[in-house]
Amino acid sequence: MAKSWAALGVDLHLHLRLDPTGIGTGTGTGVRRGLTDAIREAVRGGRLTPGTRLPSSRSLAADLGIARNTVADAYADLVAEGWLTARQGSGTSVAERPVPRPSAGPTRHPRSPFPPVHDLIPGSPDLSFFPRAAWLKASRRALTNAPNDALGYSDPRGRVELRTALAGYLARARGVHTDPDRIVICSGFVHGLMLLGGVLHARGLTSLALESYGLDAHWRLLERAGLRTVPLGLDELGTRTEELTGGEADLAGVRTVLLTPAHQFPIGKSLHPDRRAAVVDWARRGDGLILEDDYDGEFRYDRQAVGALQGLDPDRVVYLGTASKSLAPGLRLGWLVLPPSLVGEVVAAKGRIDWSCGVFDQLTLAEFIDSGAYDRQVRAARLRYRRRRDALVAALAARAPQVQATGIAAGLHAVLQLPPGTEESVVREAVRRRLAVHGLDLYRHPDSTAERTDALVVGYGTPPDHGWAGALEELCATVAPAGS
Amino acid sequence: MAKSWAALGVDLHLHLRLDPTGIGTGTGTGVRRGLTDAIREAVRGGRLTPGTRLPSSRSLAADLGIARNTVADAYADLVAEGWLTARQGSGTSVAERPVPRPSAGPTRHPRSPFPPVHDLIPGSPDLSFFPRAAWLKASRRALTNAPNDALGYSDPRGRVELRTALAGYLARARGVHTDPDRIVICSGFVHGLMLLGGVLHARGLTSLALESYGLDAHWRLLERAGLRTVPLGLDELGTRTEELTGGEADLAGVRTVLLTPAHQFPIGKSLHPDRRAAVVDWARRGDGLILEDDYDGEFRYDRQAVGALQGLDPDRVVYLGTASKSLAPGLRLGWLVLPPSLVGEVVAAKGRIDWSCGVFDQLTLAEFIDSGAYDRQVRAARLRYRRRRDALVAALAARAPQVQATGIAAGLHAVLQLPPGTEESVVREAVRRRLAVHGLDLYRHPDSTAERTDALVVGYGTPPDHGWAGALEELCATVAPAGS
Repeated sequence: MAKSWAALGVDLHLHLRLDPTGIGTGTGTGVRRGLTDAIREAVRGGRLTPGTRLPSSRSLAADLGIARNTVADAYADLVAEGWLTARQGSGTSVAERPVPRPSAGPTRHPRSPFPPVHDLIPGSPDLSFFPRAAWLKASRRALTNAPNDALGYSDPRGRVELRTALAGYLARARGVHTDPDRIVICSGFVHGLMLLGGVLHARGLTSLALESYGLDAHWRLLERAGLRTVPLGLDELGTRTEELTGGEADLAGVRTVLLTPAHQFPIGKSLHPDRRAAVVDWARRGDGLILEDDYDGEFRYDRQAVGALQGLDPDRVVYLGTASKSLAPGLRLGWLVLPPSLVGEVVAAKGRIDWSCGVFDQLTLAEFIDSGAYDRQVRAARLRYRRRRDALVAALAARAPQVQATGIAAGLHAVLQLPPGTEESVVREAVRRRLAVHGLDLYRHPDSTAERTDALVVGYGTPPDHGWAGALEELCATVAPAGS
Repeated sequence: MAKSWAALGVDLHLHLRLDPTGIGTGTGTGVRRGLTDAIREAVRGGRLTPGTRLPSSRSLAADLGIARNTVADAYADLVAEGWLTARQGSGTSVAERPVPRPSAGPTRHPRSPFPPVHDLIPGSPDLSFFPRAAWLKASRRALTNAPNDALGYSDPRGRVELRTALAGYLARARGVHTDPDRIVICSGFVHGLMLLGGVLHARGLTSLALESYGLDAHWRLLERAGLRTVPLGLDELGTRTEELTGGEADLAGVRTVLLTPAHQFPIGKSLHPDRRAAVVDWARRGDGLILEDDYDGEFRYDRQAVGALQGLDPDRVVYLGTASKSLAPGLRLGWLVLPPSLVGEVVAAKGRIDWSCGVFDQLTLAEFIDSGAYDRQVRAARLRYRRRRDALVAALAARAPQVQATGIAAGLHAVLQLPPGTEESVVREAVRRRLAVHGLDLYRHPDSTAERTDALVVGYGTPPDHGWAGALEELCATVAPAGS
């Protein structure tokens, strides 16, 4: 015991020298905290074993050259925390308890020994294009002007400033018909879809129709919410929404459909006008609901943006928008525009008060929209991505004329149609060239009966400007016929 | 038809004059958008009825004095959106569809005709004390220094900068034993508890023990996750954790307990040292788990803070912390410190990538901690709240000596013990005085068998400085015996 105590004594002196101030509130608090920490660590580390009697506060204080009360207080702290026990008449000892097993080492994510150099995975905008200076300016104004109660727990729909700004913007830019009371801010599209999945399941729904191609993260979260996902067919006009009324066995009783009408992800077509009309009529006739994922509706190049489907019937369409493509996914900001009949249930699912969304970014985005900075950013981004798309199409025409880029009228990605049977080998070649790119098959719903086509999905919005030329070069080399 | 068209023509001129620029990308886009919007609104509003033939693009262009292509493009947009139909040889008409029913009016939350003037509801810090200037400074540094990839989709545990800063801070300030790999950032305490509830339910748990008094929002979210909540007893030493081992029928098989060890909410006691030790031993013996809600652990006044229970056994205790009391609830930032065995499941529940938490506030809080600003803020807040507590105790002693304030060694609230049978009438008197304050009974778990006591829970941290004196005055007047 004498030995372990001597070792502790050395530690204590060292600790007190190294950390003479601490962060406490009163005189001597730093010394007391240093002493408390050192004894706690000695017990935790096993240097002071259970049952070990500690010296009296008087003798330890003399040994360390500190006030006796400081030692007594440190002992009292450690008794309160359960490390030490104090028994009337028998002094202070280390509590009788097994030393906790050491934790397993930190989790490490294995990394490929050859990480990709070029990233053309779709789904992310060019992050280097985020308008940091303008965002900071807006955040300064937003935080300076925010009332105190904005910093508290608030309306589960999100801040009214942002809902008001969005109602105006979405009407103007996307033809969405709404008012701020029917908008619910969420932590990005996925959070919104999660809320809707829970609400629909609670309403008794057991299945939901969607497109043949999409993101497995979305299918999985809907399945986790208790909804079977049933893919619609696909033809040269896009998603076959008429199957909803066509009497297919799998679709019997399905009353909700998730669509990307402006720019099917990842195929890239807009939903045909006749089908837009027909799907809204289907929803009206059968008390159905359309979830409109408008993930990149602002980025249309060859013609005016196709307005939101929601505008056709705000009572039958839930509009889901996001700042992830127009600004950055890291913001985790999205919005639901809801039919009046759904507002109460979605708000209840989000929580009686807003447990999800931080206010600062909400207020900043409201300021960003109101000041016109959001429009400017979208316009500049549209020009930037359009140039990349044009460069992609031109480079393919010159270097790999057998590869046709489709779905390119809008968005931040293109689909490169490959010769039949070559998708897998082209993806392998991309990996060899350290080019991250996805084959189309990765986006195919497991139950889809749509004809398979060989293709690459190329996120030309993803790289920073300085990496774009190199990525395009590697892409062309990957898809060009050998020897060309 | 001629009449409706004339009405439309007037609208169009007006619209084009009012909005000559729009936000489009090319020459003439503003005019085209204005025209598109005006026709869409005319259809939506019923002024242009289904089947109505529109004038040819040539004649409308001449009528409006704009280019024919602009009209043709606007028609094409509206056909794509489903508002109009174009048939070979028969021109363009309004699509055959019922006009959507008008939406119900906006949801309005009813407000009491006499809203409270003074707010002493516990659970919120003084929002006027949020360090706006220091936060903005930190956010500028954080955003300026952030790598581009921080703005993308990221690690489901949250930003490594914040997890690293927290690991250091929590070790130093709360005796928490961890490394950044075992911390998961979440959108405040509620989000963390939701994640844990889901994980525990997926592990097969069906019930969870907790304290007799607490927040119904927590009980309800656990019940929604499929966990029955079973309250532990309460005595003069605090929560009777020994009941976990005592063979009570309701607690048979319960292997998880949620506690507020540093400062029971709302009663205000610390968990007794013997019980701290015993509950950890219980968890070790029976493969149990303790969820430690450390909601206000930093605010202790009369002695050093009681270190986190987590330090006693990081493999058996999940530590839940939050910025809601130390900074502001509006940040929606909290953190879980997890045993290694739980990290994988919690990360999976949060999502393969971080769908929940915005990066800017995370990076700002990391910078705020690293720069020492967080410690300074906590120190200043501790002093401020301690002064309020002292003023509360002094005022009660002078004005209402029959009312004893308990649970006041820490935190941002106190419990005022009232004469038996008076809680309801005192709360009514508070409402009459437009003072928002809660009776203790509101926090009592419906299944609790603990003896009822009459008391008020007073959140003295809630009002801004300028409102504190008035709130205290009304509180004293409310609880003082009539005529005194």
